[in-house]
Amino acid sequence: MLSRDDPMLIDYICTRTLPRRGIHARPEEVLITVGSQNALFLAIDVLAQPNRLAVIEEPGYPDFAETLRRSDAPWRCVPIDNNGLDPASLPDDTRLVVVTPSHNIPTGATMPLPRRVDLLSRAVANDFLIVEDDYDFEMSYLTPPLPALKSLDREGRVIYLGSFSKSLFPGLRIGYLVASEPMIAAAREARAIMLRHPPTHLQRITAHFLALGHYDAHVVRMREEMKRRRSETIDALTGTSFCIAGTARDGGASIWLSAPEGMDSLGLAERARDRGVLIEPGAVFFEAPPLPCPFFRLGYGSIPLLQIRRGLQQLQKACDDLLNRPLFRPDTWA
Amino acid sequence: MLSRDDPMLIDYICTRTLPRRGIHARPEEVLITVGSQNALFLAIDVLAQPNRLAVIEEPGYPDFAETLRRSDAPWRCVPIDNNGLDPASLPDDTRLVVVTPSHNIPTGATMPLPRRVDLLSRAVANDFLIVEDDYDFEMSYLTPPLPALKSLDREGRVIYLGSFSKSLFPGLRIGYLVASEPMIAAAREARAIMLRHPPTHLQRITAHFLALGHYDAHVVRMREEMKRRRSETIDALTGTSFCIAGTARDGGASIWLSAPEGMDSLGLAERARDRGVLIEPGAVFFEAPPLPCPFFRLGYGSIPLLQIRRGLQQLQKACDDLLNRPLFRPDTWA
Repeated sequence: MLSRDDPMLIDYICTRTLPRRGIHARPEEVLITVGSQNALFLAIDVLAQPNRLAVIEEPGYPDFAETLRRSDAPWRCVPIDNNGLDPASLPDDTRLVVVTPSHNIPTGATMPLPRRVDLLSRAVANDFLIVEDDYDFEMSYLTPPLPALKSLDREGRVIYLGSFSKSLFPGLRIGYLVASEPMIAAAREARAIMLRHPPTHLQRITAHFLALGHYDAHVVRMREEMKRRRSETIDALTGTSFCIAGTARDGGASIWLSAPEGMDSLGLAERARDRGVLIEPGAVFFEAPPLPCPFFRLGYGSIPLLQIRRGLQQLQKACDDLLNRPLFRPDTWA
Repeated sequence: MLSRDDPMLIDYICTRTLPRRGIHARPEEVLITVGSQNALFLAIDVLAQPNRLAVIEEPGYPDFAETLRRSDAPWRCVPIDNNGLDPASLPDDTRLVVVTPSHNIPTGATMPLPRRVDLLSRAVANDFLIVEDDYDFEMSYLTPPLPALKSLDREGRVIYLGSFSKSLFPGLRIGYLVASEPMIAAAREARAIMLRHPPTHLQRITAHFLALGHYDAHVVRMREEMKRRRSETIDALTGTSFCIAGTARDGGASIWLSAPEGMDSLGLAERARDRGVLIEPGAVFFEAPPLPCPFFRLGYGSIPLLQIRRGLQQLQKACDDLLNRPLFRPDTWA
């Protein structure tokens, strides 16, 4: 009754993908999902309980909060710093933590190894579970990615979420969940009621694409291209009014920026859109955003290299327009 | 943020598929889902509430019960007859009914037009909503399908579930939900948190397959083949120990059978499996199954025409084996 996944895809993930993250998993410990959001939803569906506090990062991916909001669990945000989540800042009654150690969304912050080890020790000592969203580890092109939390986990405390949607293409919707066999069995049961299973031929097509080596070649090309785009973006930011407020040390596909003090990035985004430039205003990534919120995310994942500089010039012009508005000029504040 | 579906697929469903069911819907009233189970899950997710009684058919599709079990809503089964659900048998406090008017699962029972009209009048008079699962209306090859409940609905009380998985192939996982615009908006929001959206290129591929006419040609071939298989199955049943306990008047891809009195179909299924014949024991379709449960479902959707008679001969032999066991022989009962 409960559907198996494509054995070829599962085999590839177990023998090729996960070992690159230091993770060893048996086929029974892997479940294919409709993208990594579905993996998160299933994990929360299985783990959330009315009396178990869940903790997420702030700023963080808005749909972590939204997923918890739709669950039975109470939840809280914990502010992160440039090294991601600080395990010492977790409330005592934490029972579940959702983290993005590779690249925080939106800041890109990477959790250093000592913090990873500390987080795991605390999980054991204080009896909590960790959901690790490793959605874009492939985008670690400056230095190799740090070991996944799951690879350091000796007690089965980490539920690992992976995705091919980021590195192949977003419409694919193929992700996966790695956890203990009973947890995967429970998630498989929940998945069956939710959607039966991800389309089977899509699993097989993806497995072939991966197994034939196209994926590896594609990732190498992607990394080289992203490296150039990242470098171009950082160069082009020099001399603008925008400060880098966060960036993944090992790569990533976006940069977290701050507009001049007093400026709200929502207004900046509107002006920039009129000039053909799209940015992601930062307020949505906070449960309690600063007001005004100067932060915004600049993605270069879909921007051709040659358009980056021109785009940032337009963004600067949008910023200048705002700075020159009477209401914004500091002298009018007095 | 909330993703649109493929406009080509939505357009096909609105202009080609739904009109064949007498349903007129605008694009904003249709949502693509990961198969019809996902459509049901989303509908229940949006509609289920702790104080609103949901009603399902007995016997019925086990995952209707399982979906409700995972929801906040209280629920009950109502026994059906050869004409499907009797609207007069609904509890007074019914707030939601999940029905399969085209073909009940597992009996194939089709709800006649007067009952459909009655069910809708009661929905208006007693203020309840109806989820209509029309998963295999394409398999009405003996007579045209009766109008869908949704086509008779003037008040927006019917949420309609459709699927291409049955008529194209089961691994496809492309279904759809048709409902009022606010209901679709809520389901789209729930879908975004659950899985973002069904794979986009799969939607587009399906849209092309449909728009190029391959689907229509395929359905015509399927119907002719199913008609032959149904006729062969019914012929081959003559003289066996099995009685037809239910069958779709207009077609379908399975027949609901009864084994000799006193025999449980679970034991029959085991013996038949040893002889290479798979049947679906009927107990899973009941909340409170008869004991022993003689009913079982015989599907011919994947059985080549020429194997049907031979399969039924083997099934009869499995039945004979059981009838000749000492414990089963009526004289040992005394």
